[in-house]
Amino acid sequence: MITSHSNPKVKQVAQWQGSARERRDAGIFLTEGFKMCEEAPGEAIREIYVTSEALERSMSQPRLREKLEQAGYETVAPQVFRKMSDTQAPQGILCVVERPKYSLEQLLSGPAPLLVALEDLRDPGNLGTIVRTGEGAGVTGIVMSHGTVDIYNPKTIRATMGSIYRVPFVYTEDMGRAVAQMRERGIRVYAAHLAGEKDYDSFCYRKGTAFLIGNEGKGLSRELAQCADSLLKIPMEGQVESLNAAVSAALLVYEAHRQRRK
Amino acid sequence: MITSHSNPKVKQVAQWQGSARERRDAGIFLTEGFKMCEEAPGEAIREIYVTSEALERSMSQPRLREKLEQAGYETVAPQVFRKMSDTQAPQGILCVVERPKYSLEQLLSGPAPLLVALEDLRDPGNLGTIVRTGEGAGVTGIVMSHGTVDIYNPKTIRATMGSIYRVPFVYTEDMGRAVAQMRERGIRVYAAHLAGEKDYDSFCYRKGTAFLIGNEGKGLSRELAQCADSLLKIPMEGQVESLNAAVSAALLVYEAHRQRRK
Repeated sequence: MITSHSNPKVKQVAQWQGSARERRDAGIFLTEGFKMCEEAPGEAIREIYVTSEALERSMSQPRLREKLEQAGYETVAPQVFRKMSDTQAPQGILCVVERPKYSLEQLLSGPAPLLVALEDLRDPGNLGTIVRTGEGAGVTGIVMSHGTVDIYNPKTIRATMGSIYRVPFVYTEDMGRAVAQMRERGIRVYAAHLAGEKDYDSFCYRKGTAFLIGNEGKGLSRELAQCADSLLKIPMEGQVESLNAAVSAALLVYEAHRQRRK
Repeated sequence: MITSHSNPKVKQVAQWQGSARERRDAGIFLTEGFKMCEEAPGEAIREIYVTSEALERSMSQPRLREKLEQAGYETVAPQVFRKMSDTQAPQGILCVVERPKYSLEQLLSGPAPLLVALEDLRDPGNLGTIVRTGEGAGVTGIVMSHGTVDIYNPKTIRATMGSIYRVPFVYTEDMGRAVAQMRERGIRVYAAHLAGEKDYDSFCYRKGTAFLIGNEGKGLSRELAQCADSLLKIPMEGQVESLNAAVSAALLVYEAHRQRRK
């Protein structure tokens, strides 16, 4: 059992918690809690740290138990674990997970891709919710502009509720070019825009589809909106000027899912 | 200009910021920022506090300017304003607003109510997002169980983006009874539930409709789900076990809106 704050592994994890850049350079991300550790892909787990109490609780969770046995783990004293954790009330289990590698090429392949493309989304919770809802609606990939919040932000990871392990994603330096590549592949690109002329449920999303969603405050940039095939709008009653970005994304991907189910 | 931290008005606002109970006893809530103050109903504004800098910025915002003139305001030194504010980076304008009074009776009236009923929702941001999305979809009222987070929580108010001024809402001690009253009025009550047998888009929501949404972690209680006319489900692909509460609410109210638009 690790009982010292100066244990090199403890120091390494604490350092990763404090630096998105060091996590990136190491090619890993950190994920906490029973559900997130249970769902982590076995082959991607590098290390698991767990308190005795959490280990005991895991006895009643066969899938988690199996993961612990296969990947191996180290027990850590509670006060040391607190130093490694990002949360106020840690569950006592933390995984170091290798980052998956996806290519835009991969995301654009397949029979009828359903993509969400995000331009400079800033809120970690919104991004995580979009990944979670995206998996629910059958989204096949998420493309993010370079200015979008880090998907490996602990808040984002938590908000995905495990979907981060399953929904492919890429960051791109040039979203305009990515959109052009989508269109070359026959994927129809729809920009969610206040200036949209037609309601979101008046298009057909059964074939390859991508939805462009803009920044929470500013919406989509004019340049990117112009790259799309069509501008769509979500109709709004009352004095509402816009919807939350995760809500907008949810309405669009679930409209696509509704059409694809029929 | 108020320049002293010990000014009684400053002390009163700071005290209200720290105590949901004292805000409730005084029958008021606090709202900050240009947009939220501009949209506050004039007759409900009791006090406005503003820094010189914010006052200057308001010159270019005619609607806000008018509100300030009509309601009256007090200028406050920036360091004093910081004591009154709930936010890290205050915009320098704060309103004390009287709480609106709605009755369940009111919410159940009208030709074809579209209601959202929330059982013990805990996340302030989720609640605010539901109010905002609700206004967008034409929701006519929100009914909340006693255990639901305070709608006057500053985070909730911010997340409503002004919709809190326009969407009627009530808290109820007995949600089961409220649901019974809805049904007596001919309002169809649908419970969003993992055990739902039919998809959410297979029902007709053109007539009076209420959607029951449960707590983020536990979902709807069995007792309340049993009070509903029907259980509906939102279909989910992949390994997703549930959707975010605000996302679920958004999909339901916008499906009703889609049907009512046609």
